[in-house]
Amino acid sequence: MPSALDTNMRFKFSALALLLEVIIIVLFGLFVEYDSNNVSQNTIYPFFQDVHVMIFVGFGFLMTFLKKFGFSSVGINMLIAALGLQWGTLMQGFWHMKGGKISVDIKSMINADFSTATALISFGAVLGKTSPVQMLILTILEITIFACNEHLVTEILQATDVGASMTIHAFGAYFGLAVALVLYRPGLKNKHENEESTYHSDIFAMIGTLFLWLFWPSFNSAIAHDQDSRTKAIVNTYYSLAACTVVTFALSSLVDQRGKFSMVLIQNATLAGGVAVGTCADMSIYPFAAMCIGSIAGIISVLGFKFLTPFMASKLNIQDTCGVHNLHGLPGILGGIAGIIVTAVRKEIRATARFTPDMQAAALGSTIAIALAGGILTGGILKLPFLGQASDQNCFDDSVYWEVPEEEKLYEIHSNNHDEHSRFEATM
Amino acid sequence: MPSALDTNMRFKFSALALLLEVIIIVLFGLFVEYDSNNVSQNTIYPFFQDVHVMIFVGFGFLMTFLKKFGFSSVGINMLIAALGLQWGTLMQGFWHMKGGKISVDIKSMINADFSTATALISFGAVLGKTSPVQMLILTILEITIFACNEHLVTEILQATDVGASMTIHAFGAYFGLAVALVLYRPGLKNKHENEESTYHSDIFAMIGTLFLWLFWPSFNSAIAHDQDSRTKAIVNTYYSLAACTVVTFALSSLVDQRGKFSMVLIQNATLAGGVAVGTCADMSIYPFAAMCIGSIAGIISVLGFKFLTPFMASKLNIQDTCGVHNLHGLPGILGGIAGIIVTAVRKEIRATARFTPDMQAAALGSTIAIALAGGILTGGILKLPFLGQASDQNCFDDSVYWEVPEEEKLYEIHSNNHDEHSRFEATM
Amino acid sequence: MPSALDTNMRFKFSALALLLEVIIIVLFGLFVEYDSNNVSQNTIYPFFQDVHVMIFVGFGFLMTFLKKFGFSSVGINMLIAALGLQWGTLMQGFWHMKGGKISVDIKSMINADFSTATALISFGAVLGKTSPVQMLILTILEITIFACNEHLVTEILQATDVGASMTIHAFGAYFGLAVALVLYRPGLKNKHENEESTYHSDIFAMIGTLFLWLFWPSFNSAIAHDQDSRTKAIVNTYYSLAACTVVTFALSSLVDQRGKFSMVLIQNATLAGGVAVGTCADMSIYPFAAMCIGSIAGIISVLGFKFLTPFMASKLNIQDTCGVHNLHGLPGILGGIAGIIVTAVRKEIRATARFTPDMQAAALGSTIAIALAGGILTGGILKLPFLGQASDQNCFDDSVYWEVPEEEKLYEIHSNNHDEHSRFEATM
Repeated sequence: MPSALDTNMRFKFSALALLLEVIIIVLFGLFVEYDSNNVSQNTIYPFFQDVHVMIFVGFGFLMTFLKKFGFSSVGINMLIAALGLQWGTLMQGFWHMKGGKISVDIKSMINADFSTATALISFGAVLGKTSPVQMLILTILEITIFACNEHLVTEILQATDVGASMTIHAFGAYFGLAVALVLYRPGLKNKHENEESTYHSDIFAMIGTLFLWLFWPSFNSAIAHDQDSRTKAIVNTYYSLAACTVVTFALSSLVDQRGKFSMVLIQNATLAGGVAVGTCADMSIYPFAAMCIGSIAGIISVLGFKFLTPFMASKLNIQDTCGVHNLHGLPGILGGIAGIIVTAVRKEIRATARFTPDMQAAALGSTIAIALAGGILTGGILKLPFLGQASDQNCFDDSVYWEVPEEEKLYEIHSNNHDEHSRFEATM
Repeated sequence: MPSALDTNMRFKFSALALLLEVIIIVLFGLFVEYDSNNVSQNTIYPFFQDVHVMIFVGFGFLMTFLKKFGFSSVGINMLIAALGLQWGTLMQGFWHMKGGKISVDIKSMINADFSTATALISFGAVLGKTSPVQMLILTILEITIFACNEHLVTEILQATDVGASMTIHAFGAYFGLAVALVLYRPGLKNKHENEESTYHSDIFAMIGTLFLWLFWPSFNSAIAHDQDSRTKAIVNTYYSLAACTVVTFALSSLVDQRGKFSMVLIQNATLAGGVAVGTCADMSIYPFAAMCIGSIAGIISVLGFKFLTPFMASKLNIQDTCGVHNLHGLPGILGGIAGIIVTAVRKEIRATARFTPDMQAAALGSTIAIALAGGILTGGILKLPFLGQASDQNCFDDSVYWEVPEEEKLYEIHSNNHDEHSRFEATM
Repeated sequence: MPSALDTNMRFKFSALALLLEVIIIVLFGLFVEYDSNNVSQNTIYPFFQDVHVMIFVGFGFLMTFLKKFGFSSVGINMLIAALGLQWGTLMQGFWHMKGGKISVDIKSMINADFSTATALISFGAVLGKTSPVQMLILTILEITIFACNEHLVTEILQATDVGASMTIHAFGAYFGLAVALVLYRPGLKNKHENEESTYHSDIFAMIGTLFLWLFWPSFNSAIAHDQDSRTKAIVNTYYSLAACTVVTFALSSLVDQRGKFSMVLIQNATLAGGVAVGTCADMSIYPFAAMCIGSIAGIISVLGFKFLTPFMASKLNIQDTCGVHNLHGLPGILGGIAGIIVTAVRKEIRATARFTPDMQAAALGSTIAIALAGGILTGGILKLPFLGQASDQNCFDDSVYWEVPEEEKLYEIHSNNHDEHSRFEATM
């Protein structure tokens, strides 16, 4: 007899996933064709591959820090991204159809990968507290809303955001935080025993951190309009991240009373410089300004993890598992503000003349507003009681949704002094 | 006094490895020179590097799932690939000599890496049950036979196989399965206690899965003839893999009675779409057809792991450790069949006019026949009793061939004996 | 009350790191601008990304083999590299200023990444025995001295060293060994209980090994002068590493009395072929000569690990944690000697006519002399007593400088039979 929190999603999950895949294939059959006009595709293929690694290895492994949620982190990340890149191709393509057809090429694949990043960022906010069925729904809804907002920002408001500080990072973070607010679990007010890392899970997470960090220059330059602005985006991101990393280490030691580094800060705040420099990465801001942006991003991110995330969890009922607010949210806003300032004060260095500070501000505001509204709407849908979410005590535990090696269970029994019989009953 | 199963291979292994290396260097000195005509090499260097990562990181880490065989998986994988790429350069080069010389360049390096994939796939079938000496011999023999079959398929039969669904994946799988049949170990009929994963070994394996998955578009397009067919191969592989992944997650949940995902399926079956789309990847099949091929590959692969592999082990005496039949064998055949169908029904979209369905069918048939014959021959040679293979109870255990950290041995004692005092004595 | 070995570096570390970052940003503001003349930058961007991965993932994970020092290995590696690439940009740039300005582009970023490799190699020599504050100082000093020596070798002596066998590998190794000599710890004469690996830490280290191994052809060819010499450098490095790997496996088995492979040798000596072929990688030495160089490098490196490192530790008071002498020092000298021989015997194949064996020898000699002198000077500075170095018994232990998950500490308590109460007090 299934309870209110039935986590056996054998038929629900497979039916929904197969249905979505069939719908997508039919839509691809109707609308999608190769872009035969574009012959210089292969020059950006290395950029695509870097972004591709960031999406699947970077985001996937960054979230493996939890001691018993590694399968879900890297596995459900892969599922979201594989579904999302197909859906993103369609959602972004519908805004740019020619003759009723969507053309795909390497550039559209980069954009499709980009679109999945929003859902993966939001996944970080609710990590450990949502079911795979819920994540399928979130992926479809978020990427749909993202594509609309992206169209608004780039086509209607004519704002610039080459590294997507606003349209991906801030959007994904505030969307995810809004979902987390709606799905608030009072039972997790006290720290869950599984919501922590182990020594090796923290090292796995560094695989994600490093591939994100290393390929961020590619992320911020992949869709640049020309060679010159692409090189500037690469250089600016490279130095922003380097400065951010040194500052993050300094702050991580400074905010700890014994002066010790914190893995959660090194894994996350070192990346804030890549987010924050995104909007104006392709402009002639010079490396020293990029380094200032990166340094500020590092400071904001460290302080966010240290003070804001606990505050939001305890006072605002927003439980942000991975601290996406500090890695994507605040640095994304910083990136948007930097874009406003740069377009305002240095007219001569705008990538093209059409970007104005008021449109940049409108883009930032609309992005956050749409993300919050979309997240609340999505959260409401995900709250429907038959979507397989786990009980509070089963949060952050792969064994709810995955076959987990016995050895691991035995270890767990041993270390927790549980009764073996009760556990085996629990899984039946 | 060495027993029949003497696993100390100090002199045998090092003598054989050094002898092979000396022979190879002499042959390189006699035959190999730089290709000075090819000036546009660097455009395919990123494709080479992607393939290179797949061979060493992808295959190597994919096999680290076993709890006590990670050193061998990633280490012997490296040995096979390093030896194989040298031997493959010679074997492939002998079929294309000009003026008695073999020219090497980036493209020949891609092909040399490709040739090692056959031996690495076969390694997956016999993983944990063969010695390093046996793997040296298998590598030399398999790559030699592979190069002959590849010549037959591409030069004599004039068949197309851009992503090598037939010539690498099906070939490597059926060669390995034939070797496994000859090396059948009745003593492993009941599941060996080491033939399982741990929580972290499964996450290590995901590193392999993801790098294979991400760079498969490069694998299928690396030796495409022109920019247009290369872009098509990239796009088709990208969408085939994405569809395959969603379908694999759906099926993985569906075939488990509690609806739980299985790591072995996510690690392997998600890749079947890359194998199956290989033969016709560079043709204008359109993304929706690629997604159909990927979806069917995912279904076949999941069902193969769930039902066929246990059947083959118990009834056909074929013990396929990594399930290469489901990842490379069946999807490879599917790819070959897809190639036959596409060349048959859509004459106008053939990459060049010369490919015909009957030659594609002949290529598929000859590949499997030669793989099976070569595998049986090789298995017979590997069965010679002085090649260092371990006893049944020492299978799947690194400590037979590697120095393993003491701590690990202690842990093992601990978990098996549960007496703390005996552990400390054991180390003294 | 702080003791002589006060490891709480809360204010010292953060003040020094922030000070350095502020100085660097000011210098960037004064001197650094984009290189607007260089339009063909993107063709070498994939080479930059490969080198970038080597520096952060390759070096970082290679050092994670120690059982309790993985956070520091991958984390402090990231810190050194992020600081070093900024400082290296300035130090290398000051030697090539035009109009009082330093121009940055993709090529200068490759060189900046290169410069950090020297500090990371030296980090390997003193791994586990130095504090983060010490490593900040070492990074600044070593890169400064490196830039001077590089200028001497390439501009004044006009020597060739495309893969930097001398200027990076030998330099970094002998600098680090000189530091290790000055920082000699008699208390570590007997093997420290933490100076060993675990099963999974050895597999983490293989991530580093493989990404270094795979991308070494990019390292040795990234700054080649033209397409032809770049392709030669790629081909030569590829085959040198392959031969080195087979020979390393053979020797690893041969030097063990039970014929077992050693992880430390597979992790390190397989890479020696990339170091040793560096100096003459872009010359027409033909693949067979590259393979000979790689084979000799593998032999030297294995014998170095087996016999020389223990001798140096016990007799010469040089404790080389990672054995950088065998991976970078000896193979670097071998590379320098190969460069002397090649420029001497085969004048027709010099990359350009200006390279002479006497200048190559002078480059090798001056590099080692400057490295040793610089290392002794730096070691003397690092010996100052307020720089946060740990006591002997706290060496090789992340928990001195990092917050480490509780679970890990519990495990430690358990395995060491310590008193739980005393530990919990210690962390308060």
